Amino acid sequence: MSELIYGRNAINEALKNGRVIELYVIEEVSKKMHFDHKVIIKKRSELDRMTRGANHQGMVAKVKTYQHYELKDLIKKENGLIVILDGIEDHQNLGAIIRTCDCAGVDGIIYREHHGLGLNATVAKIASGALEYVKVAAVTNLAQTIDKLKDQGYWIYGTDASAPNYYNEVPYDRNVALIIGSEGKGISQLVAKKCDYMVKLPMRGHINSLNASVAAGIFIYNIISSKR
Amino acid sequence: MSELIYGRNAINEALKNGRVIELYVIEEVSKKMHFDHKVIIKKRSELDRMTRGANHQGMVAKVKTYQHYELKDLIKKENGLIVILDGIEDHQNLGAIIRTCDCAGVDGIIYREHHGLGLNATVAKIASGALEYVKVAAVTNLAQTIDKLKDQGYWIYGTDASAPNYYNEVPYDRNVALIIGSEGKGISQLVAKKCDYMVKLPMRGHINSLNASVAAGIFIYNIISSKR
Repeated sequence: MSELIYGRNAINEALKNGRVIELYVIEEVSKKMHFDHKVIIKKRSELDRMTRGANHQGMVAKVKTYQHYELKDLIKKENGLIVILDGIEDHQNLGAIIRTCDCAGVDGIIYREHHGLGLNATVAKIASGALEYVKVAAVTNLAQTIDKLKDQGYWIYGTDASAPNYYNEVPYDRNVALIIGSEGKGISQLVAKKCDYMVKLPMRGHINSLNASVAAGIFIYNIISSKR
Repeated sequence: MSELIYGRNAINEALKNGRVIELYVIEEVSKKMHFDHKVIIKKRSELDRMTRGANHQGMVAKVKTYQHYELKDLIKKENGLIVILDGIEDHQNLGAIIRTCDCAGVDGIIYREHHGLGLNATVAKIASGALEYVKVAAVTNLAQTIDKLKDQGYWIYGTDASAPNYYNEVPYDRNVALIIGSEGKGISQLVAKKCDYMVKLPMRGHINSLNASVAAGIFIYNIISSKR
């Protein structure tokens, strides 16, 4: 199985991982950059068509499909951190969260499959190459997945604007599964009921709604910093 | 002076603030939503043209130009927090950082004016209405501005991947000015020299470069949480 990805960082990381099958670049890029891979020269307009007008930076690659992981690949005996996405709808947010998870050394991401949210070229571009390294598992039933995590000794942390505790008031020195809700609706009720802790960020302004990937970054970095 | 903004949240906040001069919406939106303002019905194609094809959600408004602030409007006697942007180039990142600054209750943002980076409609849309509330000051010489902040009792915190200290190892119980560098190049040398502390985030992955607005969110929230 193959798919197209684009953008410099996404393609560089795919090259490092030996996932690139064919590499298409515009002439200008082929003169400026050196690739350890055979290059096929294309016109900018051809790449525009292949990527439907996305910002491809003059580089598109046909790559082997990303490896999909299963829950068991993400489990640790102790001090693990898994990020669960419950209903994230925006591919830009998904890509940015994957990038953050690589930086923070998160053990993996679980997301609920829905409306065709998947690991597409936009996600790969925004993830800036991180999709090559972060273990991502798609599941159909989050509630069941959470039960399995609890069986494996994980504590479940939900995030919600009206949670009783601030994010830095609860302990994280254990196996942690952090749930990030959707951009508009937050965490689904069924999932919220299964949480051991519900935590929130202080909100002191007028808008009081953070971008989902920024909020995820704040929660994740607080956890890894308090685990250190 | 007037300008165009678009998108539901940006326009709603401008309406609350009485900044809207004219409000253009498509028929579908006018039927679904109630506005406390006279509405001018436009075709979707007209709004597409006005916004050059941006994702306007069927709403465009002509508004009074955003108020621009000066350094003195941002200064506090004690326990202040000012965010300084040194070379951020991406309007999406600027918008997301403004949104975070509203949520965190930051006293204001200072940015260096360059290549036409300004408070345009994209910034307003991504800021999701926060541009109505966050004080933003544009300056031409950051080094001079930092000297003035020091005279006012501010400590200067630079962020850099190779900084000696982790972000949560230094004290913030004072007047803080946090400098966020550009997406690619970080903080400029001249500015870095003026910093009292240089701080970094732990990096444990392969990519090890966070999105600028996510990194800003982590730094900012760590500061306000440790000030509490």
